[in-house]
Amino acid sequence: MFWKPQNLQQCLRRLYSSSSCLAPTIKQILNNGQIPAKTVVHGWVKSIRRQKKATFIAVNDGSTLEGMQAVFLHPNGNVSDTISNVSTGTSVRLIGELIQSPGRGQEKELRVEEVVIFGLCDPLRYPIQKKDHSLEFLREHMHLRPRTSAIAAMLRVRGKLTQYFNDWYQNDGFIYVHPPVLTSNDCEGAGEAYQVMTQAKGIREEFPLFLTTSTQLHLEALTSSFTRVFTIAPSFRAERSQTNRHLNEFWMLEAEINFLEKGLSDVCNVLEASLKTVLGKLIMDEDVRYLREQGHLTEKQFQYWLNHSIPWTRVSYTQAIERLQEHHLSGRQPYFEFESPKWGQAFRSEHERWIAATMGANAQPGPVFVTDYPRNLKPFYMSVNEDIPEGATVACFDLLVPKLGELVGGSMRESREEKLSESLRLFGMSEPPLYIGNQFVVP
Amino acid sequence: MFWKPQNLQQCLRRLYSSSSCLAPTIKQILNNGQIPAKTVVHGWVKSIRRQKKATFIAVNDGSTLEGMQAVFLHPNGNVSDTISNVSTGTSVRLIGELIQSPGRGQEKELRVEEVVIFGLCDPLRYPIQKKDHSLEFLREHMHLRPRTSAIAAMLRVRGKLTQYFNDWYQNDGFIYVHPPVLTSNDCEGAGEAYQVMTQAKGIREEFPLFLTTSTQLHLEALTSSFTRVFTIAPSFRAERSQTNRHLNEFWMLEAEINFLEKGLSDVCNVLEASLKTVLGKLIMDEDVRYLREQGHLTEKQFQYWLNHSIPWTRVSYTQAIERLQEHHLSGRQPYFEFESPKWGQAFRSEHERWIAATMGANAQPGPVFVTDYPRNLKPFYMSVNEDIPEGATVACFDLLVPKLGELVGGSMRESREEKLSESLRLFGMSEPPLYIGNQFVVP
Repeated sequence: MFWKPQNLQQCLRRLYSSSSCLAPTIKQILNNGQIPAKTVVHGWVKSIRRQKKATFIAVNDGSTLEGMQAVFLHPNGNVSDTISNVSTGTSVRLIGELIQSPGRGQEKELRVEEVVIFGLCDPLRYPIQKKDHSLEFLREHMHLRPRTSAIAAMLRVRGKLTQYFNDWYQNDGFIYVHPPVLTSNDCEGAGEAYQVMTQAKGIREEFPLFLTTSTQLHLEALTSSFTRVFTIAPSFRAERSQTNRHLNEFWMLEAEINFLEKGLSDVCNVLEASLKTVLGKLIMDEDVRYLREQGHLTEKQFQYWLNHSIPWTRVSYTQAIERLQEHHLSGRQPYFEFESPKWGQAFRSEHERWIAATMGANAQPGPVFVTDYPRNLKPFYMSVNEDIPEGATVACFDLLVPKLGELVGGSMRESREEKLSESLRLFGMSEPPLYIGNQFVVP
Repeated sequence: MFWKPQNLQQCLRRLYSSSSCLAPTIKQILNNGQIPAKTVVHGWVKSIRRQKKATFIAVNDGSTLEGMQAVFLHPNGNVSDTISNVSTGTSVRLIGELIQSPGRGQEKELRVEEVVIFGLCDPLRYPIQKKDHSLEFLREHMHLRPRTSAIAAMLRVRGKLTQYFNDWYQNDGFIYVHPPVLTSNDCEGAGEAYQVMTQAKGIREEFPLFLTTSTQLHLEALTSSFTRVFTIAPSFRAERSQTNRHLNEFWMLEAEINFLEKGLSDVCNVLEASLKTVLGKLIMDEDVRYLREQGHLTEKQFQYWLNHSIPWTRVSYTQAIERLQEHHLSGRQPYFEFESPKWGQAFRSEHERWIAATMGANAQPGPVFVTDYPRNLKPFYMSVNEDIPEGATVACFDLLVPKLGELVGGSMRESREEKLSESLRLFGMSEPPLYIGNQFVVP
């Protein structure tokens, strides 16, 4: 008496092998060693080349960078009406035989026997053409821009990156948690958080709730139960700056670790190992190759930076300041727009880029950990170093990378009650009730 | 001249094997086949049993359900001061020898040789005891509740679930995307979205931006480029109801698929395969076992529901209504609080639970897909069935599961312009400019 879908029985074998019954994507078809008698391809036409004996169509379903070349032979020189109607952007189902491609540029191609057109596309009104479009132009066509190679590659890489970071952190004993987005916490500097309100049915209500700017405080609490936690989650800043380094909404990986045996160097080791492993897994990916070439980076550079046996440079803030001043005094290029900073001053972006361009491993461009910044440049909760003069620096790092500058920041959190109280006084902050280690402390 | 961390050389081998240099967690120690000469364990004391010849301490670092049993022998009956000071909640580093446990309840135990106490804990003020606490009590101690078995197990399972769903969908050709949280979209029913504002430095600004209630519309746009997309992301509803089915913030898996060859049954197949595979991977997990036992579900029930060769029931709304009415007329228990619904009316929660309790595979309790609801009960965008009377039902499903009721909902999206226009009229909605398939349509 129940409705039994007819295809369920046929699907059982595939269900049993734990994948769904969906028709394979172009990526799955091209990666499949066995070639079935009939191949079905769905997708959108990316470009068309009409010749006398055949029409060549590049069709993509978004699963790969290049898509599939489909070939329509013209028997006796006749071109069918269906093929004549196809234009860039048309959505189609193609059925045919997958063969070794006699042409260059692709290993396999589809010799099409049957075409179903789902949606025709007016070539005069369809904005995405084969040529490269500017990002500004594409921003006006948000719903279609993932059909371009650059945006599609970026989004696919983003998905893979997220997954690979998840894998790495979970394999290394980190618990993957989801701290709240709506929170009454703020983190490092007020006035930048969005607040939430409702105005349903004309009734207006404001709540003492903000969109998270960082999950750090929740992760710190969770690390007191789980030892190692991480999250990949959205963060929000009510930024007014329109630069390529300011976003109102972005996803961020954050991690907190308890019981470190070697302090800050443990933190740097975790970060270096995770970045090298995750990016190393992606280095041969076709989307990453495409994006790397757009960014004028060679594969050799990538391989060098991600080599597990070439440690990334670790240099203290104090040493980096000395190097910047040496460079400034030498009179050599590049010249800085802003003066070289003195001890106690923050780096400008140009100084950070110079450090990554010159102080990587073997004095080559490369990632550089700059550690132990002056206490006044960093938030109150960072652990004070026992250096000379005592309390001048904190145990923290910024990871600087070529072209971008700061990619990651981190620190040891201060766990000594007297040092934390001292920092609160130094930073002119009132002392709230504090919870330290396993003790409640009400100053 | 650069600072070279001394431990980096020692770490190279581990770095090279792509994991970090952190000391292993209790889970990693217990799963490691080789037993090193010295074992270091970090964690918090969960319980203490003091006996004449030895003190037994259960210590956990949050990586496992049970943690590690640590044994402190008392040579000549002397108990060291350090051991005397240890109480529930104390954070410790324990160094010793890992041995086969002569006692019951654990395979291995740590014969402790050295103890470092990081933080003592006042047993009179520490709220987490060995006994079970109510969820209400734990809500007052949010930062410590992940130290209880129930909350810790739930959070660990949540992390694994997220990861396994990610794996399954990516393996099945879905692209993992991150649609915006801040959006001007709303989805199915207005007035429930939070709006955002800022009031930095006394200047108040409201924005025409809402927190997403569902990523569906963004996913639909992306599926026109990627064919198959999914996300696991936070959603927000300005709910006023305080029930166990209403949350202001929750994470949700959403997926959209293009080019389905078999319509709704394809969608149900994807869902059934993903749930069976993901939950099947977790069935032997110690945390899941613990939570299952708390919920009074047997492993046999789970195995039955997740068996790939026993398809879940698929029944139409119309057939489910007939069954509910038969049951109502039979006079058998359970009696419904609300009358059995007539065709065209929505199910109440008790009806949904009855369906899952009686109409699973082989008339046992189990998951049930109820499909093809009346058009008036569902949103305007669902695809209209070509049934008799035409246009009475839409191609959708709700997945009902025992005890909970509705777990997942889905539908075919209407892609026929005239049907969509008709729905907009029927639902009394104005017709905005529409984009259908590959054509812009301005009605």
